[in-house]
Amino acid sequence: MQQNEKTVRQKVAVVIGAGDSTGGAIAKRFAREGYTVVPTRRTQESLTPLVEEIEQSGGKALGLGCDARDEESMSALFSRIEAEVGDIEVVVFNIGANVRFAITETSARVYRKVWEMAAFAGFLAGREAARVMLPRARGTIIFTGATASLRGGSGFAAFSGAKFALRALAQSMARELGPQGIHVAHAVIDGAIDTAFIRENFPDRYALKEQGGILNPNHIAEQYWQLHMQPRDSWTHELDLRPWLETF
Amino acid sequence: MQQNEKTVRQKVAVVIGAGDSTGGAIAKRFAREGYTVVPTRRTQESLTPLVEEIEQSGGKALGLGCDARDEESMSALFSRIEAEVGDIEVVVFNIGANVRFAITETSARVYRKVWEMAAFAGFLAGREAARVMLPRARGTIIFTGATASLRGGSGFAAFSGAKFALRALAQSMARELGPQGIHVAHAVIDGAIDTAFIRENFPDRYALKEQGGILNPNHIAEQYWQLHMQPRDSWTHELDLRPWLETF
Amino acid sequence: MQQNEKTVRQKVAVVIGAGDSTGGAIAKRFAREGYTVVPTRRTQESLTPLVEEIEQSGGKALGLGCDARDEESMSALFSRIEAEVGDIEVVVFNIGANVRFAITETSARVYRKVWEMAAFAGFLAGREAARVMLPRARGTIIFTGATASLRGGSGFAAFSGAKFALRALAQSMARELGPQGIHVAHAVIDGAIDTAFIRENFPDRYALKEQGGILNPNHIAEQYWQLHMQPRDSWTHELDLRPWLETF
Amino acid sequence: MQQNEKTVRQKVAVVIGAGDSTGGAIAKRFAREGYTVVPTRRTQESLTPLVEEIEQSGGKALGLGCDARDEESMSALFSRIEAEVGDIEVVVFNIGANVRFAITETSARVYRKVWEMAAFAGFLAGREAARVMLPRARGTIIFTGATASLRGGSGFAAFSGAKFALRALAQSMARELGPQGIHVAHAVIDGAIDTAFIRENFPDRYALKEQGGILNPNHIAEQYWQLHMQPRDSWTHELDLRPWLETF
Repeated sequence: MQQNEKTVRQKVAVVIGAGDSTGGAIAKRFAREGYTVVPTRRTQESLTPLVEEIEQSGGKALGLGCDARDEESMSALFSRIEAEVGDIEVVVFNIGANVRFAITETSARVYRKVWEMAAFAGFLAGREAARVMLPRARGTIIFTGATASLRGGSGFAAFSGAKFALRALAQSMARELGPQGIHVAHAVIDGAIDTAFIRENFPDRYALKEQGGILNPNHIAEQYWQLHMQPRDSWTHELDLRPWLETF
Repeated sequence: MQQNEKTVRQKVAVVIGAGDSTGGAIAKRFAREGYTVVPTRRTQESLTPLVEEIEQSGGKALGLGCDARDEESMSALFSRIEAEVGDIEVVVFNIGANVRFAITETSARVYRKVWEMAAFAGFLAGREAARVMLPRARGTIIFTGATASLRGGSGFAAFSGAKFALRALAQSMARELGPQGIHVAHAVIDGAIDTAFIRENFPDRYALKEQGGILNPNHIAEQYWQLHMQPRDSWTHELDLRPWLETF
Repeated sequence: MQQNEKTVRQKVAVVIGAGDSTGGAIAKRFAREGYTVVPTRRTQESLTPLVEEIEQSGGKALGLGCDARDEESMSALFSRIEAEVGDIEVVVFNIGANVRFAITETSARVYRKVWEMAAFAGFLAGREAARVMLPRARGTIIFTGATASLRGGSGFAAFSGAKFALRALAQSMARELGPQGIHVAHAVIDGAIDTAFIRENFPDRYALKEQGGILNPNHIAEQYWQLHMQPRDSWTHELDLRPWLETF
Repeated sequence: MQQNEKTVRQKVAVVIGAGDSTGGAIAKRFAREGYTVVPTRRTQESLTPLVEEIEQSGGKALGLGCDARDEESMSALFSRIEAEVGDIEVVVFNIGANVRFAITETSARVYRKVWEMAAFAGFLAGREAARVMLPRARGTIIFTGATASLRGGSGFAAFSGAKFALRALAQSMARELGPQGIHVAHAVIDGAIDTAFIRENFPDRYALKEQGGILNPNHIAEQYWQLHMQPRDSWTHELDLRPWLETF
């Protein structure tokens, strides 16, 4: 894409963690609406297929490598996008780190790393988003939650710890930034998503796909788009998304 | 409207409690999508302006008087609609009863009446909806909640009691009926809505309307429509709706 | 007991719904501390064994028949106790009504009756308690909750509806009455209690009794006593009680 | 104290974070019941006044310096106590880190440090507690929560993030360890505690002390003792503690 179309500022949607199918679907959804999308992953190369797919559909995308857990890396990312791409209107934080261990088998390294990926990186993304959006008093920030955002299940001390923290971040930012014009939302994805991971590791669950028993990433993306479309008199802070067959 | 178009069954959306601006907006939103809408209130006459407005926009509507707290009246309502109008695809329960009294000033009559209007009537509507939808394994049932659905504030023993009960109903029905194909959702409206009541009684609040400080009924209606549109792999059970300026 | 010891006012603990083992255990616990206890049930006769047991242990008790769902009956009960027995320091509301029906099998009669027993009666008890306690700016009101107070499970529309409403009542009253010196608490009993009902209907569950797998009513009673003992700088509004083996 | 009374094992209560008045009060409460208490802070010296006070009252105490955020330090602490002092029956995690910053003013260093103190250290303490308690299938682990455990308020992204994570830990451990005989509880302290910090920084709040408007640390300690005393058929996982005047 052309990065010097500066006379009219592009509207940009950043997707932090576009490594799984959900992040990619969200990027494609916003690209379809004319947004220049910036998906990020650890390495820029891994984003090439997604960027090409968006461009072939007539959309604009710029994949950028970024260590979301690194303050300088994240700060530089947002500065660069604002300088070279356009106005960041939407930021979606979509990094998870679902692991399960008995408490005595949970190493400090794992506990810390899960938090760094799923909560600390979310803090950095949210803070940088706020930094660029506040002067414009406009923008949408969406955090992807999970079942573990609401319930600390057995074996999920690390994962639910990070997801609870991310939900606290979303609430705190919503209360601070809402009255300044920025819409902060938290989506609780309560069920298996149609990903390679589920296909390979949970074949019984994956077999429910045909009858709608697992979440279609495009449908999640549609909800995120709808959240962004909400007029400011009717903002949703939190919603859940769940297949019809899912027990809860 | 013509009630004898029986060769192809009409798709029907029923709005129980279309007395305020929200219920009317929901009826109009579904009518715009081709649904035959059936708004109800205590008396049929009071629905005439809404029905005429829908018909003048090219929509189909049949206003029906019904005491939503009366089992026979509600049962007859649903039977009649199925017999004479079409397949009930959507039921929205939208009756509230916001009152505030110190606990020692709360009469048993008030406590009971608020429950009958905001919870018992919701039970009747939900049960009758389930009865007609289950054989088709299809349909959407939406209950309108409030701030008081989540928090029992001082002076709100009666209102929050009814709203908590309605939320329990929505949860219970979602867990039972979801796996049978019926989408049950609960929308927590957390803020003042643009109604005559707010305009007359809370002028300071109403003055925030121009900057989006109170909820636009059409925007609530849009969310209800979006809930109905969700594919069954990605259903929302609960979401909140709140003006950007609202503290929570 | 003697009802004319009026020179020094008795301290009274009222237990509304002393029909099961929990209510009885609570009555005995407070009697042991010197409170004159007034257990109530529908009929006074059914309370005779409990009253005799308390009196034989050296305690004071007066069993009173009362239809807890009837406003006049409840109002008269509280007036009579204050006039003839002493100062009501503690009121425990302990009526449940656990039923389970599919939503389409839930009759309006059942839905209403469950609410009347488990929520409306709680409102009457709470309001009458507030009425006599407010002038003294002192007293404890405890409502007995259940798993269904927090979660609307499949088949529990009626029961969880009533229990959610009771929790709303407890919250609302705590927020209003706390700053007026009255301690309002809600105990979520999340598990089977050692009762004849469990013994007869859930023998597998009952078999866990020896290893502490079901709740001992005396231990529930101990917690209620501890709640009453809390100094006013450290009040608990809500706690859960659950056997160690219970999943949650 | 004598550390070689090994023929009969001492019962030990460990208080991680006995720096404020609450931790000290908890240590004294358990010492009064005959437990050998091990309060910890960053430096052993700072614990001398507390240890001396306990010993002068006839109790047994061993203050130990420990960096609660350091895995090796925490692991060594628990191993040493088991080897030299006795059986760890109770572990209380009591480290907070209440800070408030606008989101754009929250540095990555602060966000991380608050989490390390209030959540990561809690994880280390909880895991080490589980490690020594599981072979005995016995023990109580209590985590101290706050208002911010339940609500992400404006300006509290860091603090509520850590406190939410700690609550997730408590839930996860309770679900895993409860059926293995270990009682895990989470106490939500919702209000100002009588500390030097409140006295110096919030004099208006502190002035409420005489009428019970701030929490007495000894009363918190009493609740922790009661939690430990609960028989295993009636365990509380979560309770709140709040002054009567506190709004919530």
